[in-house]
Amino acid sequence: MLSEFSLIDRYFARRARTNTRRAVLGIGDDCALIAPAAGEMLAVSTDMLVEGRHFFPDIDPHALGHKALAVNLSDLAAMGAQPLGFTLAFALPKPAEDWLAAFSAGLFELADRYDCELIGGDTTAGPLNLCLTVFGSVRQDVALRRDAARAGDDIWVSGTPGDARASLGLLRGEWQVNGQTNEQDAAHFRRALEYPEPRVALGLALRGVARAALDVSDGLAGDLLHILERSNLAATIDVDSLPISPALARLPRDVQLQCALAGGDDYELCFTAAPGQRAAVEAAAQHAGVRVTRIGTMSALTSPQTAPAIAWRDAAGTMLNLTLQGFDHFHAD
Amino acid sequence: MLSEFSLIDRYFARRARTNTRRAVLGIGDDCALIAPAAGEMLAVSTDMLVEGRHFFPDIDPHALGHKALAVNLSDLAAMGAQPLGFTLAFALPKPAEDWLAAFSAGLFELADRYDCELIGGDTTAGPLNLCLTVFGSVRQDVALRRDAARAGDDIWVSGTPGDARASLGLLRGEWQVNGQTNEQDAAHFRRALEYPEPRVALGLALRGVARAALDVSDGLAGDLLHILERSNLAATIDVDSLPISPALARLPRDVQLQCALAGGDDYELCFTAAPGQRAAVEAAAQHAGVRVTRIGTMSALTSPQTAPAIAWRDAAGTMLNLTLQGFDHFHAD
Repeated sequence: MLSEFSLIDRYFARRARTNTRRAVLGIGDDCALIAPAAGEMLAVSTDMLVEGRHFFPDIDPHALGHKALAVNLSDLAAMGAQPLGFTLAFALPKPAEDWLAAFSAGLFELADRYDCELIGGDTTAGPLNLCLTVFGSVRQDVALRRDAARAGDDIWVSGTPGDARASLGLLRGEWQVNGQTNEQDAAHFRRALEYPEPRVALGLALRGVARAALDVSDGLAGDLLHILERSNLAATIDVDSLPISPALARLPRDVQLQCALAGGDDYELCFTAAPGQRAAVEAAAQHAGVRVTRIGTMSALTSPQTAPAIAWRDAAGTMLNLTLQGFDHFHAD
Repeated sequence: MLSEFSLIDRYFARRARTNTRRAVLGIGDDCALIAPAAGEMLAVSTDMLVEGRHFFPDIDPHALGHKALAVNLSDLAAMGAQPLGFTLAFALPKPAEDWLAAFSAGLFELADRYDCELIGGDTTAGPLNLCLTVFGSVRQDVALRRDAARAGDDIWVSGTPGDARASLGLLRGEWQVNGQTNEQDAAHFRRALEYPEPRVALGLALRGVARAALDVSDGLAGDLLHILERSNLAATIDVDSLPISPALARLPRDVQLQCALAGGDDYELCFTAAPGQRAAVEAAAQHAGVRVTRIGTMSALTSPQTAPAIAWRDAAGTMLNLTLQGFDHFHAD
């Protein structure tokens, strides 16, 4: 029977100690030492995941390991930053070997795919809580900020937002699996919820092409509003142009829109670019192997007193009155 | 009545957004962007604090704010790194304005003293949990590592270890306040437990003077062992030379040694330096306004098969057989 120390050491600390390419010191000293590439800045983001709020108590620990890092890499993607490393702090009620084995496998499979090294951490007993801080490297002048959008920019989104929220709705019984939404669709939704793919390659390819960007974690509508507020602009979205997955398209239209616009947990990129960059955006998406869709346009505020807001219309240009309910965990950002 | 968003924004996010000296972007974008000083590395450390394990449920939130940052700054001090900034992620059962006001006051009073800026964060509902990641700047060749001690080095410690553990023992009823240990002593111990002072100035002054260093969080004996293991050395400690505070000196001698050697939560620096550096160490301590005491000597292992270990002796040179009980939270490092 391994002690708690040995268990954690087996799955995390030894691995971190052997990571010496980028981090001069990893777990085992008081601090890790890292540096961004020459002439670049270090991009830093931190996310905390709590049981019952960010994941169900019965989540597969492999999926949890994946998702905990994925949501952090997604923040790097949204800045156009190249992943370098991460720290992992977690509280566990009691370390179980099979849980740690599966969790670390999910975590490191994703970390290895993006060449992102574990450089330090902390573990303690306590109610299950995961806190990751991720580090990337980006040149300051090409970082994809939220305040860089301009009037006339196209608004783009990657992938097919809404699928993770569709899974949550099925799991919560908000809507039912029916003749149209079969088990295959449910599995597709579940995968979107548990194994979101951070759009790192797309973020890197969009440097110098896109203007503003963020990752969609709390729902496309609410997150786009962050760009509007920071850039002091309004937006018009063509609801009929929203990319809806075939699975989501088999649910009722009002559920599709609720999921795609106010769902949360998508980890797709929403970004703006000048109309003259359309071919460059498509090329970046093709290079990254990710679908992107043009869904609307940024515009100037009609007066300095106008609050940034989103106007919704359909393909025929008719204005729509949508009532959206946001994702319900509370966030500082 | 403020909403949860507004409360957090009031105490943390707005402040972070106005921090633009070092962090190009703070809370409000996907990542913060920071950089170490030219030619230096970024030192990174992360610590997670959990109620019931790292602090009592009834802790004064002002003290908690102080301590959460102090334990992280202490890791920077132990590397000889200059504090730059930190991220704060926390889970709260429910945000209460008076709690957030006191917690943020304790946090920012310490942060301001060390010119360490809040650059990003995350908040969520959940069982109380604080995860800070702190960033400093240090030249790689003068960083105080754990693996840099050499045979013949003096072993030093700052301050008077054991006082925090003495407080814990009083609070737990392990030993009693008696005629000798009056209310003033109890208040002294309590302050050591709740308001540890990170030895940042000392760590900076020891660059180029000390060889190996770490901060004492889990007890002097156990933490010194980390230096021995990483440097592959043995140590002899003169127990009579241990710096004991006047308050701790009024408790029984076995309690003094238990507290000073196996107490934990001290956040003093334990470091080694060549005997030729004694005057330089004293000068560094004077510059930093911190007491330092020479408590022993590093030596080579008697054979390659010998495990790194600490030998205890008294001032007369008699070897002692001490049984120490370590601090009981489990750690990856």
